[in-house]
Amino acid sequence: MSKLPVTLADIQATRDVLAGQVIRTPTLPAPKLSTLTGAEVWVKYENMQVTNSFKDRGAYVKLSSLDEAARKTGVVTMSAGNHAQAVAYHAQRLGIPATVVMPEQTPQVKIRNTEAFGAKVVLDGETLAESQIRAQQLVEEHGLTLIHPYDDPAIISGQGTAALEMLEDAPDLEIIVVPIGGGGLISGIAIASKGLKPSIEIIGVESRLYPSMINAMTGKERPKGGPTLAEGIAVKNVGTLTLPVVRGLVSEILLVSEPELERAVNAFATLQKTMAEGAGAAGLAAMLGSPERFRGKKVGIVLCGGNIDSRILASIMVRELEREHRVCAFRLTFNDQPGVLGRVATRLGELGANILEVSHGRLYLDVPAKGATLDITVETRDRAHADLVEAELAKFEGIPCRRIRPGGGVE
Amino acid sequence: MSKLPVTLADIQATRDVLAGQVIRTPTLPAPKLSTLTGAEVWVKYENMQVTNSFKDRGAYVKLSSLDEAARKTGVVTMSAGNHAQAVAYHAQRLGIPATVVMPEQTPQVKIRNTEAFGAKVVLDGETLAESQIRAQQLVEEHGLTLIHPYDDPAIISGQGTAALEMLEDAPDLEIIVVPIGGGGLISGIAIASKGLKPSIEIIGVESRLYPSMINAMTGKERPKGGPTLAEGIAVKNVGTLTLPVVRGLVSEILLVSEPELERAVNAFATLQKTMAEGAGAAGLAAMLGSPERFRGKKVGIVLCGGNIDSRILASIMVRELEREHRVCAFRLTFNDQPGVLGRVATRLGELGANILEVSHGRLYLDVPAKGATLDITVETRDRAHADLVEAELAKFEGIPCRRIRPGGGVE
Repeated sequence: MSKLPVTLADIQATRDVLAGQVIRTPTLPAPKLSTLTGAEVWVKYENMQVTNSFKDRGAYVKLSSLDEAARKTGVVTMSAGNHAQAVAYHAQRLGIPATVVMPEQTPQVKIRNTEAFGAKVVLDGETLAESQIRAQQLVEEHGLTLIHPYDDPAIISGQGTAALEMLEDAPDLEIIVVPIGGGGLISGIAIASKGLKPSIEIIGVESRLYPSMINAMTGKERPKGGPTLAEGIAVKNVGTLTLPVVRGLVSEILLVSEPELERAVNAFATLQKTMAEGAGAAGLAAMLGSPERFRGKKVGIVLCGGNIDSRILASIMVRELEREHRVCAFRLTFNDQPGVLGRVATRLGELGANILEVSHGRLYLDVPAKGATLDITVETRDRAHADLVEAELAKFEGIPCRRIRPGGGVE
Repeated sequence: MSKLPVTLADIQATRDVLAGQVIRTPTLPAPKLSTLTGAEVWVKYENMQVTNSFKDRGAYVKLSSLDEAARKTGVVTMSAGNHAQAVAYHAQRLGIPATVVMPEQTPQVKIRNTEAFGAKVVLDGETLAESQIRAQQLVEEHGLTLIHPYDDPAIISGQGTAALEMLEDAPDLEIIVVPIGGGGLISGIAIASKGLKPSIEIIGVESRLYPSMINAMTGKERPKGGPTLAEGIAVKNVGTLTLPVVRGLVSEILLVSEPELERAVNAFATLQKTMAEGAGAAGLAAMLGSPERFRGKKVGIVLCGGNIDSRILASIMVRELEREHRVCAFRLTFNDQPGVLGRVATRLGELGANILEVSHGRLYLDVPAKGATLDITVETRDRAHADLVEAELAKFEGIPCRRIRPGGGVE
């Protein structure tokens, strides 16, 4: 393989640079995820970094490597996500002025989170590639130093320190599964862990909607684009430094679907009580999608980021309850008359189905003119209980009852 | 003070018993919580135990201390919460038959979580005190060993090991804040940490609705009862072993309100990306409620449990967005005519307020007969933005607009 951009020795030296500057996150066994996947799962909790992703590592390493003049002039980067926050936070700590260029449509909350760490946010471009053009201009016009999110040896070396800690906590790992965006994290982790333990396998994960690295490796052109829960790894261009590392050291890249990502985010939340953003859960999503690839192995997954929107997480958790038949909705259609809700609610109580939401409708076209619909959402114990509730509701004479699917459709 | 039920040396010996049997959880700095509280906050993540609470420690210690005959006959306990799961899980691992008595009204999910670890669940009694009577009967009739949730030296010693780990990771701590239910956790932590470092201060926290330990200590009879987010520490009777320890070693007990608990659960979720149940967040709630007590100090808080219902957590996170004016609801009243929603929605779009929910109502008594109401929920950036949106909506002629409070009331 071609020459590596950094060596194991570089990454080991970088670890000393990082000591006391970023959080030494734990790698812990996750027996419930082991039961779920059939492998022995260990989790590296990079969401416990201050800005809640591994990006703190590379950002600090790069920023602290700058000389006095460069620090004084300041830095610029392009990112709407975790890299932006990490650069802003560590630049503020080091007293370095930071500018972050974000695409114009970036959600307010991401702008605010970055500005909260004292960075100047510039909105320019429709995509990150267009933001990069502006960042490059700022480099040329004002002499700012560009902090690239992944295509930089200092960044790769910083991200790689995570693997040193993983193998310190869990030396028996046989596989490490790493999400791939531009490839900085997996490059650092592959160099460090294969350097320490050549027998270890590194498996990469990309969103099925953004198969950029696997395209670059195989020369195929799978289509890219679309809204993904894993926006942190929705990258269209892989790094020129990272591609050869991945080609040389990564055994396989798995693609994960949106439902797998959603299930993984939910599993982290409900079983491990920790928050993973979509990209952060990609490693677990790959294990859920290809369990046979991992069965019986000691597998380390990097929970690389926890910055998920509260509303999205809330919605994922509630949808999962619906999938597990622990929340269940029914639509009853009946002639509008007093007492129906009372009878239905009483029966639900007897069945042990706790009512969560009730909504009456009178205006649907498929309802008789004098009729009404009653949408009623209840807590159920499991599928059998939900089926029982449905069967019992169907017994009300003249009140047809249909199960409503998660998302609002009627089955 | 009276003789301690266990000594520092006991707890140190217990640590060897626990090695490899429960998770050695991390104690990590939490800079965002430090910013929030004005203290230097360290968090002990006991929600990372397999059953997601510190109860794994005491349960394993007690169960593994039983002789062959007792193991064969089996154990019984009374708990609807974390202790039940911990006993069930470790009994299963050790091959010990376990029976758990729970109050009759215990939610299905808690029953199922305990049964999933192979324990037999018996529903008896309206309260845990009544369940205990049944557990006692099972001890007498079948020779089962009672695994008391807190009033047992083995349990106290097990819980105390958490403090050894905390002071190993963060030797400079000046204060440790510990939630109090029956007092097992705080007793173990107080004995271990004051033994290692006499200058350290231990502060206890109870729910304002269940001030049992502070009542026992002060002889006052503050009322007890009511629904609390912190059901894990909603205990009516403190331990006979734990009370003297708390009296002797704990400097102060702080009471926390429900809003403080809710805010703390939300802060753990949104800032630390970790899930705390109400009781698990009580330490942080106390810091939010009495910041002056902690300002500038190095404070360790024990995030003692993460078993919060998904729906409750989802609701807390969304309510907090409303409190921060990042989600905002308005009720418009108007004569029912085409085009109103279109005009309103267009204006909201121009203002950058993303619409989340829309609901039309026609039947409220305070609406004219031919009128309708439009409840519209939008995403806003902050209070200023929400106020701007309100002011702009008020400009639609003949369409009075009111802000709707979180929870549904109209301001």
